[in-house]
Amino acid sequence: MSTPIELTNQQVRLAARPVGLVQRRDFSFSEEPVREPDDGEALVDISYISLDPAMRGWIADLPSYIPPVGIGEVMRALAAGRVIASKHPGVAEGDRVTGLLGAQRYATVSGDALNKVDTYLARLPVHLGTLGMPGMTAYFGLLDIGRPQEGETVVVSGAAGAVGSVVGQIAKLQEARAVGIAGGPQKCRYITDELGFDAAIDYKAGPLLAALREHCPKGIDVYFDNVGGDVLDAALANLTRDARVVICGAISQYNATDGMRGPANYLSLLVNHASMTGFVITHYAHRLGEAARALAGWFAEGKLTAKVDVAEGLENFPEALQRLFKGENTGKLVLKIAEE
Amino acid sequence: MSTPIELTNQQVRLAARPVGLVQRRDFSFSEEPVREPDDGEALVDISYISLDPAMRGWIADLPSYIPPVGIGEVMRALAAGRVIASKHPGVAEGDRVTGLLGAQRYATVSGDALNKVDTYLARLPVHLGTLGMPGMTAYFGLLDIGRPQEGETVVVSGAAGAVGSVVGQIAKLQEARAVGIAGGPQKCRYITDELGFDAAIDYKAGPLLAALREHCPKGIDVYFDNVGGDVLDAALANLTRDARVVICGAISQYNATDGMRGPANYLSLLVNHASMTGFVITHYAHRLGEAARALAGWFAEGKLTAKVDVAEGLENFPEALQRLFKGENTGKLVLKIAEE
Repeated sequence: MSTPIELTNQQVRLAARPVGLVQRRDFSFSEEPVREPDDGEALVDISYISLDPAMRGWIADLPSYIPPVGIGEVMRALAAGRVIASKHPGVAEGDRVTGLLGAQRYATVSGDALNKVDTYLARLPVHLGTLGMPGMTAYFGLLDIGRPQEGETVVVSGAAGAVGSVVGQIAKLQEARAVGIAGGPQKCRYITDELGFDAAIDYKAGPLLAALREHCPKGIDVYFDNVGGDVLDAALANLTRDARVVICGAISQYNATDGMRGPANYLSLLVNHASMTGFVITHYAHRLGEAARALAGWFAEGKLTAKVDVAEGLENFPEALQRLFKGENTGKLVLKIAEE
Repeated sequence: MSTPIELTNQQVRLAARPVGLVQRRDFSFSEEPVREPDDGEALVDISYISLDPAMRGWIADLPSYIPPVGIGEVMRALAAGRVIASKHPGVAEGDRVTGLLGAQRYATVSGDALNKVDTYLARLPVHLGTLGMPGMTAYFGLLDIGRPQEGETVVVSGAAGAVGSVVGQIAKLQEARAVGIAGGPQKCRYITDELGFDAAIDYKAGPLLAALREHCPKGIDVYFDNVGGDVLDAALANLTRDARVVICGAISQYNATDGMRGPANYLSLLVNHASMTGFVITHYAHRLGEAARALAGWFAEGKLTAKVDVAEGLENFPEALQRLFKGENTGKLVLKIAEE
């Protein structure tokens, strides 16, 4: 075992509850000695921090599925790294792992909270995206709630993002039509040319309602929503009878300062005998193994493409998070803070 | 056979598309000779016209599950009466019937469009309410979509209305707790004292959110919504894990002139792995017999209480419809236009 006690940890802490888009001033940076693992714990040398839309909820002081990050606490984050010390029987030095390790350079955590990942199968950051929480989110949301049938039309918003990109690819694996909504021609080319979606709609390029009618002439059977707002309303206006709307997120609304906006077209559910069902990945905690196996299998067979968008430097955490909420990333956004 | 050709029909016609609450000027009145039935048709002497929230949608020029009533056309309405002439083999003079007969004194319609009803079981107007379309709407919405389990908490808005009053009573028959939301102490007393709901919340009496917390300490498992707006938002804020929200109507929004308002709290679906599903009774056209038999059975056993709120006179149709949208009725609102 190395001598972790001599290492210095760098940490991103929540300094203030953001109003609207997160700002640098909402975070502070700290240094402190790394704590040596107690029995049952392991010490992880973190190389990638995951930037996820859910973070906006974690730092808002509102009731949710987990308590918010407290002011002064290390920012909650999924991360990936290498175990450099362990007092847990199931975790060994050298293991590559992911987990809720926090936005920091090193994490001393319970070994039970670590997921070992296979870096022969995929590079470490892919385990934060397509093979990690976003991929599993896509898997359960689409297959358990959306339940696309062969030949049905699946529309996903945020289609070039970590979750959306997997939703469309799994839809194709179910022999459904996959239509993605994304912002800008570069993202749209990515989802059709690299991910194999049947069509892409650039919501910034023109009226979304007309574009959905054009690309979904029979209507939308499954709509997987990551964004909320106008995009959700346009999709609702194009549902088929018995359509399933999956509510995975609402990134357009997370930074709203004048209150959340609900979907004005929700009575489309009534006219179409359609349903709108929400979820977070923790609801599927007992089934994560199933998703992990399926995603790894598809990935190994070359049926899933994984793109990682890498920002660099722990000190750039606030700006990286801003990029996410501004929709500037293509694929899974991670912050590289050290070499693997 | 009598000589129907000598009868004069009185009719309510749509004169203009209403803006906001319906007004007398939105309707016109006409008289014309009654048309004798052709082969396959029957002539009905109408005594009760049903006033239903769906009427607001039928006269709006918006895409929906059926085309809107055209300007100048007889107002679409469910109604009940007695067959006074028939050229349909399945319908006989003297039969008591319901159907989409229109807001008029007499209707000459296809015999296939008539439902024969049993006036020994219940008075004619009850077949427009608890044993008719509203009762069947409650039946399918609650049992097929809401699926309450024993001991679960069912909350219904518009609880003193034609649909809501049946929802709560069927919830009790499933051994669920029934909590009704209604406007004013008189309606609240009605649903607890006469219908047997476990609790009633007067949404006009104080903050709804707090009242829901008080009366649903374990949260809402099934929420059956007839009203939309603030009431829907308050219910969404109190859902249990895996809750089912049934969207049956949105009477608070039908007369809005500044656009529909969507439920701002819809992300409660996400946090709670909950669903929101809409329907109209026509989606269950193939199963109406099942609902009719169940409702008639419960009614015959004294397990369903039916209240009818009777307005009088075809000439008062516009004001009766206003009463409905102002929430002034308790139980099923009908317009009596002739003796049975």
